[in-house]
Amino acid sequence: MIAEIISIGNELTTGQTVDTNAPWLAARLAEFGVTCTRQHTVADELAAIHDVIDMAAKRANVLLITGGLGPTPDDLTRLGLAQAMGVELDFHEASHRRIEAYFRSRKRPMHDGNRQQAMFPRGAEPLMNERGTAPGIYARLHDSRVYCMPGVPSEMTWMFDTYVVPMLQELAGEGVILRSILRTFGMSESEVGEKLADLMRRDRNPTIGTSAADLIISIRILARGQTRVEAEALMADEIQEIRQRLGQVVYGEGDDTLATAVGRRLIETRQTVSIAESCTGGMIAKRLTDLPGSSAYMKQGFVTYANEAKTALLGVSADDIREHGAVSETVALQMAANCRVRSGTDYAIGVTGIAGPSGGTKEKPVGLVYIALASPDGETKVKEFRFGDNLSREQVRDRTAKAALNWLRRKIDQQS
Amino acid sequence: MIAEIISIGNELTTGQTVDTNAPWLAARLAEFGVTCTRQHTVADELAAIHDVIDMAAKRANVLLITGGLGPTPDDLTRLGLAQAMGVELDFHEASHRRIEAYFRSRKRPMHDGNRQQAMFPRGAEPLMNERGTAPGIYARLHDSRVYCMPGVPSEMTWMFDTYVVPMLQELAGEGVILRSILRTFGMSESEVGEKLADLMRRDRNPTIGTSAADLIISIRILARGQTRVEAEALMADEIQEIRQRLGQVVYGEGDDTLATAVGRRLIETRQTVSIAESCTGGMIAKRLTDLPGSSAYMKQGFVTYANEAKTALLGVSADDIREHGAVSETVALQMAANCRVRSGTDYAIGVTGIAGPSGGTKEKPVGLVYIALASPDGETKVKEFRFGDNLSREQVRDRTAKAALNWLRRKIDQQS
Repeated sequence: MIAEIISIGNELTTGQTVDTNAPWLAARLAEFGVTCTRQHTVADELAAIHDVIDMAAKRANVLLITGGLGPTPDDLTRLGLAQAMGVELDFHEASHRRIEAYFRSRKRPMHDGNRQQAMFPRGAEPLMNERGTAPGIYARLHDSRVYCMPGVPSEMTWMFDTYVVPMLQELAGEGVILRSILRTFGMSESEVGEKLADLMRRDRNPTIGTSAADLIISIRILARGQTRVEAEALMADEIQEIRQRLGQVVYGEGDDTLATAVGRRLIETRQTVSIAESCTGGMIAKRLTDLPGSSAYMKQGFVTYANEAKTALLGVSADDIREHGAVSETVALQMAANCRVRSGTDYAIGVTGIAGPSGGTKEKPVGLVYIALASPDGETKVKEFRFGDNLSREQVRDRTAKAALNWLRRKIDQQS
Repeated sequence: MIAEIISIGNELTTGQTVDTNAPWLAARLAEFGVTCTRQHTVADELAAIHDVIDMAAKRANVLLITGGLGPTPDDLTRLGLAQAMGVELDFHEASHRRIEAYFRSRKRPMHDGNRQQAMFPRGAEPLMNERGTAPGIYARLHDSRVYCMPGVPSEMTWMFDTYVVPMLQELAGEGVILRSILRTFGMSESEVGEKLADLMRRDRNPTIGTSAADLIISIRILARGQTRVEAEALMADEIQEIRQRLGQVVYGEGDDTLATAVGRRLIETRQTVSIAESCTGGMIAKRLTDLPGSSAYMKQGFVTYANEAKTALLGVSADDIREHGAVSETVALQMAANCRVRSGTDYAIGVTGIAGPSGGTKEKPVGLVYIALASPDGETKVKEFRFGDNLSREQVRDRTAKAALNWLRRKIDQQS
């Protein structure tokens, strides 16, 4: 079964609003094993709406349209659909009474525009809307089932669950589709691609695909089965196979970030952490507290941006700062070791570096970062990173935070 | 001039990722007066990519394509474009060397997959990518200029600004187009809209439009002139008029955030700040250090997430924490006042609250936050915020950081 999604509205095509309806619908469709190869966003222009609906209905079995059902003159979905169907718009008395009742119940005045919301292409069916004024529309066009829903997310999702889901369940018949995502850090997308090349063939079941965002390589897995049990077994085997091939670089699944992966491990092992940050300026502590319940493991953090702060708050030797510079192995080591002792935590991270864009020298270029990790075994280790001076300040800071959190993750796994 | 946007990737068509590239591009195009009636999202499937590119290029003068330029087998944009152009893919030596150099400079191994990133449709031009490995592609198809850019936002936006903007300015023809953005905080978009209603008429020059994102209302200004001098004069007058009408809520221009606006004021007035954070967990310190040169004003920060940390690091009375709770006026006041003294800074911010989603009570619901500000005049004031328990943890933390930074901004303006 093939579906296409059409989102209608100038607020979308001018970029004033980010369309969250299409991704939501696509994700729901995938759960029913419906692939949605194409999605479209169209302005409030009759010719374009008419054309896109006509073309999509020729390709798809199911066509989901959101937006353009409002009471204003630039709401043209009804008319566009009617033109694509080659029919007139008829006034639908029952829908009009329902809209009137909706306004009466809210003691709000009804406007002439709302009358147009009771107009439907001849042969189409109104879809009652419990969450707002605009009724939806169900119609057949070419070989496609067409569902028009309001752009307001709360109304759209209600209509989808109420009218579209039962139809999908019917059409889907037996099969079950399961989706999973594995998150990795520490390998390039091409490395991951090579290790999984044979698994990435389109004709397989499960199918997998990769995507990269800020050094996080995600692996999406789609497993199809006649029964849930079969799909779950396929998924479990695939995840095991991928984890085996990629090993430690897999840090989590679903919505996991490196910070939530670290947080979960600390909660499981009942351990705590504290952070001493210079160039990241609080970014690592912020991420470690993104997770609800983070007070269980995140005790305190020091943002020692000024050299005096490194000495006053963390007892970093002023002589060492003078001799080796604030961005040096020894300063990072002292930040982590002293942070751990002063905070009484199991782990502590110390970070100092040159985030740029200025402040770099030949010996110490922008992107040079020292990360130190103090562990329960009493050891404190330091690593040097050179992220490259072509990165933005934000990128250097993001990569520093990720490198530190990933190191802590690996360390916890080794110790436990 | 007509433009269309194509976003390519299964992570988009399966709804696992929300596409922010298309809205960003659409908004930028609108600033050049380019309407973008249609946008498309396509899966990593050759036939569909080929078809969408071919159809769109027949309608549009400018075709912006993002995604599908990676090193893995499911990156098919190059091939799809080549097929639409009816040409072969050629290996481009110089691009390959550039990719090799990119990996060498990072001491990372290069993989076979990266070789495919140096393949280009015959007759197309590589677009050098300073922010990543994947070169972009420029080609002519039908009567359309086609630009293929990576899906990674930081790489895509850089390529757009570097290669597409100059072309748009050229096509815009005679005269000069200047763009400015004013950033405001503290007024709703409808309030701003009312105050600027007469300026928002489409037939004016300059033209202005508003957009809202996370409580920041941005006003985009586009001024056209036969000469740069004329455009600059129009822009200057418009900005002055808008600032006059909106007053203090305008906190900056361009890429300014509340944090960079605060940072600039502190640098100008040679003043310093320190931060004591509980529920924001380092978010405010992180934002204050987003700005290069922030070491001039940001001295140190304390992330006192645990109650013991509040007492140990900031000398907050343990009795008061017991009596009034960690989320209370007195704790916020002590955090700010003591942070200022211990840091020896002109200003200090203290923040404590319930970010949620759990931890709320009837008297102290999720979204309750106390923000205290200690100032050079020796005064420390506290404000209570109730952001509402319908917000996500991330939203509560973001609004807390914005409220604190905005208060500091206003305070600095009053004192100077």
